[in-house]
Amino acid sequence: MSEYHAPVKEMLFVLRHVAGLDAVSRLPGYEDVTPDLVESVLTEAALLATNVIAPTNRIGDAVGTRVEDGQVIVPPEFTSAYREFTGGGWAGLSQNPDFGGQGLPYLVGVAVEEMWQAANLAWSLGPLLTQGAARAIEAHGSEAQRALYLPRMVAGEWSGTMNLTEPQAGSDLAAVRSQAVPDGDRYRITGQKIFITWGDHDMTANVVHLVLARLPDAPPGTRGLSLFLVPKFIPQADGKPGARNSVHVVSVEHKLGIHGSPTCVMAFEGAVGELMGGKNQGLACMFTMMNHARLGVGMEGIAIAERAYQQARAYARERVQGRVPGIEGRAAIIHHGDVRRMLLTMKAQIEAMRGVACIAAASLDHAHRATDPAERARHQARVDLLTPVVKGWCTETGQQLTSVGLQVHGGMGYVEETGAAQHFRDGRITTIYEGTTGIQAADLVGRKILGDGGAALQALVADMTATLPELERAGEPLAVLHSALQEGIESVVAAGRWLAANHARHPGVAGGISWNLLMLLGTVAGGWVMARAALAAQAQLAAGTSDVAFCEAKLLTARFHATQVMPVATAWRRGIEAGCEALLALPEEQF
Amino acid sequence: MSEYHAPVKEMLFVLRHVAGLDAVSRLPGYEDVTPDLVESVLTEAALLATNVIAPTNRIGDAVGTRVEDGQVIVPPEFTSAYREFTGGGWAGLSQNPDFGGQGLPYLVGVAVEEMWQAANLAWSLGPLLTQGAARAIEAHGSEAQRALYLPRMVAGEWSGTMNLTEPQAGSDLAAVRSQAVPDGDRYRITGQKIFITWGDHDMTANVVHLVLARLPDAPPGTRGLSLFLVPKFIPQADGKPGARNSVHVVSVEHKLGIHGSPTCVMAFEGAVGELMGGKNQGLACMFTMMNHARLGVGMEGIAIAERAYQQARAYARERVQGRVPGIEGRAAIIHHGDVRRMLLTMKAQIEAMRGVACIAAASLDHAHRATDPAERARHQARVDLLTPVVKGWCTETGQQLTSVGLQVHGGMGYVEETGAAQHFRDGRITTIYEGTTGIQAADLVGRKILGDGGAALQALVADMTATLPELERAGEPLAVLHSALQEGIESVVAAGRWLAANHARHPGVAGGISWNLLMLLGTVAGGWVMARAALAAQAQLAAGTSDVAFCEAKLLTARFHATQVMPVATAWRRGIEAGCEALLALPEEQF
Repeated sequence: MSEYHAPVKEMLFVLRHVAGLDAVSRLPGYEDVTPDLVESVLTEAALLATNVIAPTNRIGDAVGTRVEDGQVIVPPEFTSAYREFTGGGWAGLSQNPDFGGQGLPYLVGVAVEEMWQAANLAWSLGPLLTQGAARAIEAHGSEAQRALYLPRMVAGEWSGTMNLTEPQAGSDLAAVRSQAVPDGDRYRITGQKIFITWGDHDMTANVVHLVLARLPDAPPGTRGLSLFLVPKFIPQADGKPGARNSVHVVSVEHKLGIHGSPTCVMAFEGAVGELMGGKNQGLACMFTMMNHARLGVGMEGIAIAERAYQQARAYARERVQGRVPGIEGRAAIIHHGDVRRMLLTMKAQIEAMRGVACIAAASLDHAHRATDPAERARHQARVDLLTPVVKGWCTETGQQLTSVGLQVHGGMGYVEETGAAQHFRDGRITTIYEGTTGIQAADLVGRKILGDGGAALQALVADMTATLPELERAGEPLAVLHSALQEGIESVVAAGRWLAANHARHPGVAGGISWNLLMLLGTVAGGWVMARAALAAQAQLAAGTSDVAFCEAKLLTARFHATQVMPVATAWRRGIEAGCEALLALPEEQF
Repeated sequence: MSEYHAPVKEMLFVLRHVAGLDAVSRLPGYEDVTPDLVESVLTEAALLATNVIAPTNRIGDAVGTRVEDGQVIVPPEFTSAYREFTGGGWAGLSQNPDFGGQGLPYLVGVAVEEMWQAANLAWSLGPLLTQGAARAIEAHGSEAQRALYLPRMVAGEWSGTMNLTEPQAGSDLAAVRSQAVPDGDRYRITGQKIFITWGDHDMTANVVHLVLARLPDAPPGTRGLSLFLVPKFIPQADGKPGARNSVHVVSVEHKLGIHGSPTCVMAFEGAVGELMGGKNQGLACMFTMMNHARLGVGMEGIAIAERAYQQARAYARERVQGRVPGIEGRAAIIHHGDVRRMLLTMKAQIEAMRGVACIAAASLDHAHRATDPAERARHQARVDLLTPVVKGWCTETGQQLTSVGLQVHGGMGYVEETGAAQHFRDGRITTIYEGTTGIQAADLVGRKILGDGGAALQALVADMTATLPELERAGEPLAVLHSALQEGIESVVAAGRWLAANHARHPGVAGGISWNLLMLLGTVAGGWVMARAALAAQAQLAAGTSDVAFCEAKLLTARFHATQVMPVATAWRRGIEAGCEALLALPEEQF
């Protein structure tokens, strides 16, 4: 019912004019990543997303997955789409060429990733986790492990999973109980894991589980967690899948959305596993995968909002209701002021989020490839700071926007056949998995701001502040962007100052204001992105671009963002500065 | 899985100290509505809601409704609950005793209504529409129509519906095409209606449809709509249901939520109907029902948020994750700062919304019963102003809060068996039916503010302003409430001034800012309510109340509201004052 067309032109604009594709292209190994190459990659991916993957979205929702003879069965359409995806080399797009990857920058990778996610969020989780697991193996695996697993996972022949959660251990991984007992040069893993995304399925020849468990002599808490590689089929000497390992799916969850993604309860019953990374180093190893997945889930917030936006926009152009002065006869609802407000709220925030996420991805490229170690460290700090923001803010905003998209449809939005409700249901998971927004906010405030004495935050503030004089020079047309960004930056600075001055007063303070701070930082970073985009659009107009309409629309969208979205930043700042006395004082029984 | 307990103490507090139960009790006919009587009514209703209706909520979601042999079948548990409900005289609680009602004030009626809605939203829609239809018949029906239909509908023996929407006529009723042709002293109605809530079912002996249709000589547009009473079974001379009328259910919609409420496509094929009210007066007649239903749907936003809140609170008290300084061992998540923020966000906004809705209900009582015509008019203007606010703001906020409730559950919230997702799905309809939020916002700005030159808005502003000196006298403990309310009132005044000065500039201006204005007015009215509640709590503490904990919690909740919720009012004001130039200028093809 609803089609999806990847916004290639917009993505290219963001990559080039907001996220600094040119600078990424100057990194060693990326010299041939020209704008033309990127455009052709995005265009080709868009075709696959539109023609092959998007049509499976509704099928996955309606049919879902099931367990049959101890094996998860996914819709056959998913498997066909996956074959075309891996056949085209898309699985390892930004993976290491040494293991069969295409070696493109992360910056290009996230743009393409957004397409798969928008086309079919449930389906896209399989590849997302597989590539995250591959990165963890590349970073922490032994040479033998890398040689055995990486080529197959980078190619997408085998898939990967992340086995962390147990019934008593969700956000709190210190409570993990699964056990690993040495058995020769390997281990036997026993325990139950829940909420395992794509924990089992019939789409690939093997499933490689990364499992957090405890060695017999391990210390308590997170310092006693080790990471194990547990394949569904134990590879033979020739690397082909061999004997069935004793890890099995118990059931799949009946969920609000992403029905096409099997969320599994997994039973490990003395399953054969290999230790990866050092003993008791499991959490650090897992974080390689988790950080990758967090950026990926942040992209999901953007992707599902984009899909919902496209559907709402198409409906608003088609649906005729009421009259609008200046339009003959009854008008399409896209001409009604309040419908325009809803659509522009979606468009502006999607563009702002995409820009921030792409800036994080570009920094990841610099962190990996820059020749200067100081430059690498500077970018790594930016990635660390922005990861919880992209994950938390983009998913919170993205799922709100799916609700706006549904609203544009009126009563039809509430009827499942329309498809708007599926995006609303699917998107709702994104603020939860890979660490809830509360966990992201705690990470932001605790590790990423207080943890380095505010250095990474100050560096971001300095970069944002550097855009102000440019906006000033741009004059009246961008004056509202200038004042909104200036006020936004002041709010970020004030909030950081308040946190530094007050967090030690009470152990609950940081947690009490962390969500506000995360949303504030995301919103203001979004305003910065929109300002940079507006500056680029203005420059192109001045240079006589042939795409006047696109650049003028960019300016109007940035204006809308500055006047209608940015004022809320001040509200969050004030919430922070008011402290959280009331919140901490309310007795449990009075809730 | 999730229980519901009506917050009787809180409701009584709001009725007495925010909404002015005493003043309502002084109205003619309500002299015996003492606080004790109200408490016993609420307590009894709470028992029915908890023990009889709430247990059907999940059943309705899982089983849904179906069409069998041209008849809608609802879960049998719904019918049993309905029998207890009507048997106890609850159907006509605030209806006219002349027709069998209990004659209690609206103010008591809405509090009790919230309980049925929270207990089972889908189920509660049946009684809501029936009583709305009864009010329309009482206001516009002939003596014979009232005598025939009212006693049965007030008792809940027969149910009522509202047949407005057609495929091409949703928000735009001017496009209604259904025809009514005279046939003796009656009419034959032909047409198709969609989205008819409880359009057919097996819970009552008859279903009375109020149908908008056009007479052969009717003018085009809404001025050519007439209202017809079309019973499923044509009453015999003795009033018993007789011959089957030719109105039939075609299908029920497959919806995101409220699965237990049959949303019907209805076919009228020369169905026998009676004209109600004058020819071409249909819209005015229907508005009697619609305004009643709009207040009711506003209550639904509050009710579903309350239900979601109770479930999230229970989970947060039970679920143990992580550690919190000052608590031994692993802590229940209610002790984590961000979880407290989520719960208090729900609690504070629910209390604010309930207060505003109850103020509207009390005004409805004064509008109907006050002896002084000027007093009646003054209160009617308040009801008219607040109806779109209660409908729009309470449902927008309520559905956001169901999302917060789901979030408190983490991954468990996304699993359907937990029940949190049902509230999220159920609540999502409330911003759509009985007029979308966009329609409410247009009504507020067009009819209710510009329509009377801002008089009703100014009267509300004056009443809110009168609370400021009281807050000032209350001193430091309420200082943050004073400044928040003062700033909020200034925002409302400024927004009203901007609207008056700018709406004529461009026909799209009012629509472009209307949603912001609706949310602004709701939020500030909520701040006013919380301030009044805090003043009452402070007074009770000073007077040596025995319920110190409750009153202190009220003060903390009001503080949280003033510091964490109210700042957004300024953001909305600034959005309005920035105008909607960008929104109106963006070409359709650039969305």
